[in-house]
Amino acid sequence: MHRFPLRVRYADTDQMGFAYYGHYLRWFEIGRVELLRSLGMRYRDLDASGVWLPVLEARCRYLKPARYDDLLAVETGVLRQARASVEFGYRVVREGDSPEILAVGSTDHCFMGSDGRPLRPPRELAEILARSPRAAGDDW
Amino acid sequence: MHRFPLRVRYADTDQMGFAYYGHYLRWFEIGRVELLRSLGMRYRDLDASGVWLPVLEARCRYLKPARYDDLLAVETGVLRQARASVEFGYRVVREGDSPEILAVGSTDHCFMGSDGRPLRPPRELAEILARSPRAAGDDW
Amino acid sequence: MHRFPLRVRYADTDQMGFAYYGHYLRWFEIGRVELLRSLGMRYRDLDASGVWLPVLEARCRYLKPARYDDLLAVETGVLRQARASVEFGYRVVREGDSPEILAVGSTDHCFMGSDGRPLRPPRELAEILARSPRAAGDDW
Amino acid sequence: MHRFPLRVRYADTDQMGFAYYGHYLRWFEIGRVELLRSLGMRYRDLDASGVWLPVLEARCRYLKPARYDDLLAVETGVLRQARASVEFGYRVVREGDSPEILAVGSTDHCFMGSDGRPLRPPRELAEILARSPRAAGDDW
Repeated sequence: MHRFPLRVRYADTDQMGFAYYGHYLRWFEIGRVELLRSLGMRYRDLDASGVWLPVLEARCRYLKPARYDDLLAVETGVLRQARASVEFGYRVVREGDSPEILAVGSTDHCFMGSDGRPLRPPRELAEILARSPRAAGDDW
Repeated sequence: MHRFPLRVRYADTDQMGFAYYGHYLRWFEIGRVELLRSLGMRYRDLDASGVWLPVLEARCRYLKPARYDDLLAVETGVLRQARASVEFGYRVVREGDSPEILAVGSTDHCFMGSDGRPLRPPRELAEILARSPRAAGDDW
Repeated sequence: MHRFPLRVRYADTDQMGFAYYGHYLRWFEIGRVELLRSLGMRYRDLDASGVWLPVLEARCRYLKPARYDDLLAVETGVLRQARASVEFGYRVVREGDSPEILAVGSTDHCFMGSDGRPLRPPRELAEILARSPRAAGDDW
Repeated sequence: MHRFPLRVRYADTDQMGFAYYGHYLRWFEIGRVELLRSLGMRYRDLDASGVWLPVLEARCRYLKPARYDDLLAVETGVLRQARASVEFGYRVVREGDSPEILAVGSTDHCFMGSDGRPLRPPRELAEILARSPRAAGDDW
């Protein structure tokens, strides 16, 4: 899976001293955008060309809390790919001597034009997704 | 289900002109806290008494986008209740002449002490949850 | 000044147990939009008609912390109005038997078209601002 | 000034297509924490030792909008240092062939114990701040 580093900021913490559960969806966004960038596709160019990947569904399982200033990584891979949709899988891990999985999650997307209609993805995007790292394991 | 009004703010929108998908988890938090308040239980008092309800899992299905300045309501009910855990169900609806369901979701929680150990909930909380509105429908 | 209620949510707190300092700018946004709404002007309509009020400068002085679940109000008034710009003043107060001022701030705006050019505001908006409540006091 | 890279995420944008004005305060937090880290001081250790640097005042001037996926840097330096307080200055710049200053700002802090009382900073922190890069220029 593709790895991208993250740091837990004060803005991300709540009064329990943990990263707020809603921020993980932001981290998933970062994960999938950086996965695409690593494969040569900038989401901003897709967006500008009128191809959107809206999120149809998101799930996150919280295993251990992330704390202030923790150095994390979001690991991202393609979980399933169909003609007009794609699903990404994510792991949020804490770096360190013994890395720990803090959360696992997934997001389902369709391809949509800026008119709100479903689309076949441009061939370049379909090919990029086809050769993307897969979401490993069976934890989704 | 318990209803609580929400307004989509500029801060909540993204450049597609929609409410960002991560903000729905904040709305779910508002929904469950206001559900408890409506039943006579303030989450701040629970928190201060050392009883936490951390989120173990969250799910959201996005059916239609919420847009800037939309007046929404989050509808919340108990979906399942067990000895040491509880699950809430949510609907985000757009108010208006013909209300629309924009998203449905759920969160699973355990009861935990401030030492991180699982807890039986205080009797008052268990009773409150038992008489809470249920999450209606079979859409979870 | 115009008053609008706010509740501090878990999402707003940080690990000090206080509302994170950046969220106050969101509250100021809510304050000025609700001030305009109370005067008959919806910001969404302005926005849709191609008149933007981008923020040129923002300031906030933090006097006392806001805490989880506090019931606050944002008080908003016009501080200065010129031909192509307007400045709003804000107070964040904690409601209760003895209300407390938690923060004061201000934002400067110009009127801009969607092409990025400065604009004279539409007459209706100029008139609404002229009869808006003023930001009282000399604390800005 | 100390430089730290930032990427504008979808979560940061608003429906104008720009980074929301409140997020700049988060970027300032990142700037000052990374400035301290570069000088050998982790804010998490300060925090754990009961020394807080709460923000007394924040200001930001927005010169040009930041857009989705822009690669930015936050530049941070000490602006003023007194016995029981410190002020940081910031610049948000867009990287690229011709770097542009998008925003400038500052934050004032005091040193406070976890009991809420003002404190003299620990000597190590005072020395670190004294040898910190200064906020250059006269734009504050």
